Amino acid sequence: MRLRRKKDAMELLKANPYVIIAQEKQLFNFECFSKKQPVQIEIGMGKGDYIIAMAQKYPHINFIGIERYDSVLAIAASKLEDLKIENLKLLLFDASDISTLFEKSIIDHVYLNFSDPWPKKRHAKRRLTYSSFLKQYDHILKPKGGITLKTDNIGLAEFSIASFANHGYYFKDVSLNLHQNELLNQNNIMTEYERKFSSMGYPIYRIEVYKYE
Amino acid sequence: MRLRRKKDAMELLKANPYVIIAQEKQLFNFECFSKKQPVQIEIGMGKGDYIIAMAQKYPHINFIGIERYDSVLAIAASKLEDLKIENLKLLLFDASDISTLFEKSIIDHVYLNFSDPWPKKRHAKRRLTYSSFLKQYDHILKPKGGITLKTDNIGLAEFSIASFANHGYYFKDVSLNLHQNELLNQNNIMTEYERKFSSMGYPIYRIEVYKYE
Repeated sequence: MRLRRKKDAMELLKANPYVIIAQEKQLFNFECFSKKQPVQIEIGMGKGDYIIAMAQKYPHINFIGIERYDSVLAIAASKLEDLKIENLKLLLFDASDISTLFEKSIIDHVYLNFSDPWPKKRHAKRRLTYSSFLKQYDHILKPKGGITLKTDNIGLAEFSIASFANHGYYFKDVSLNLHQNELLNQNNIMTEYERKFSSMGYPIYRIEVYKYE
Repeated sequence: MRLRRKKDAMELLKANPYVIIAQEKQLFNFECFSKKQPVQIEIGMGKGDYIIAMAQKYPHINFIGIERYDSVLAIAASKLEDLKIENLKLLLFDASDISTLFEKSIIDHVYLNFSDPWPKKRHAKRRLTYSSFLKQYDHILKPKGGITLKTDNIGLAEFSIASFANHGYYFKDVSLNLHQNELLNQNNIMTEYERKFSSMGYPIYRIEVYKYE
């Protein structure tokens, strides 16, 4: 699906029952879900392959896919048209303010899949694992809540390992070549992007960390 | 040099001025060094290429190479025969008791190069980055002292990242492909083993961590 104009994307989004356009300074309303159950979010969900597959695989968890570009979110939304998934919402929102979107200690898990690596040092603050983001995740995550990062970008993997460690997260699983790791790969849901880069022979890095309390 | 019998190795070692045979329950005597200066150690120095090159490159630091196999230590010692390096000693000692060898807070840096990965889970306790070893390094390291690990073994790299992080070390540098990292590779001293594995296309992992205080 190609979207030529921003207006087209917004029209489509507003009409889609899965989509929520987050309002500034307004908390996310969990009553949009039919069941009250644990909540996991993906920040920068892109075209939505991962979060849609997760929602289908784990019906006892509510999932929120967050994306800041409406044209990209529209692609994810379009994939849901013929599906009925009660435990999934897609949210148009810029994650740099994510601690204003959710109450304290309400999220069980944050997924960061193939986030923009921002390779230049002067852009480090934009990386989704920069300390200012981790502080925000701390706020919205429940005690012992977790974060899982997947990336093919070696620079982002190296940066994130140090950032998670120096922020005081507990490391549960580190894989420096996910697709060669039998145990972790078993339950891995691949994104379109992941399939492409992995088939080119690049290792996929996966880091799973938890808050201590 | 081939050593057929253990006796041959011990004879050679005792005659070598660089070599110290550590005695049980006896602290290392730093007066063996001609100058009083910061001390860095390599645990499991093997054939000694790394620690010898380091001692030559950094004369303002005293280096101790520790190895538990006398036949291996003898190979390192034989390389020193025609050299005059005042800031280097080689020590025959099993690192599993290293906290009994040094006083508290006396070592500036610990190097672990291509340590045995002990890949089987039931042998995890033998890995030189297992928590019981880290506790001993804590004891002998000065405040803000550091540890640098290099390995080509992905399993040991993954395990060590988690172990360092969960032990509360501060991560300074993480490289998941050292020889592609221009900045870190510049000052890298390669061991024979490293040269071999790197030339086969395997990435070398390097993790540098520090105590907070």
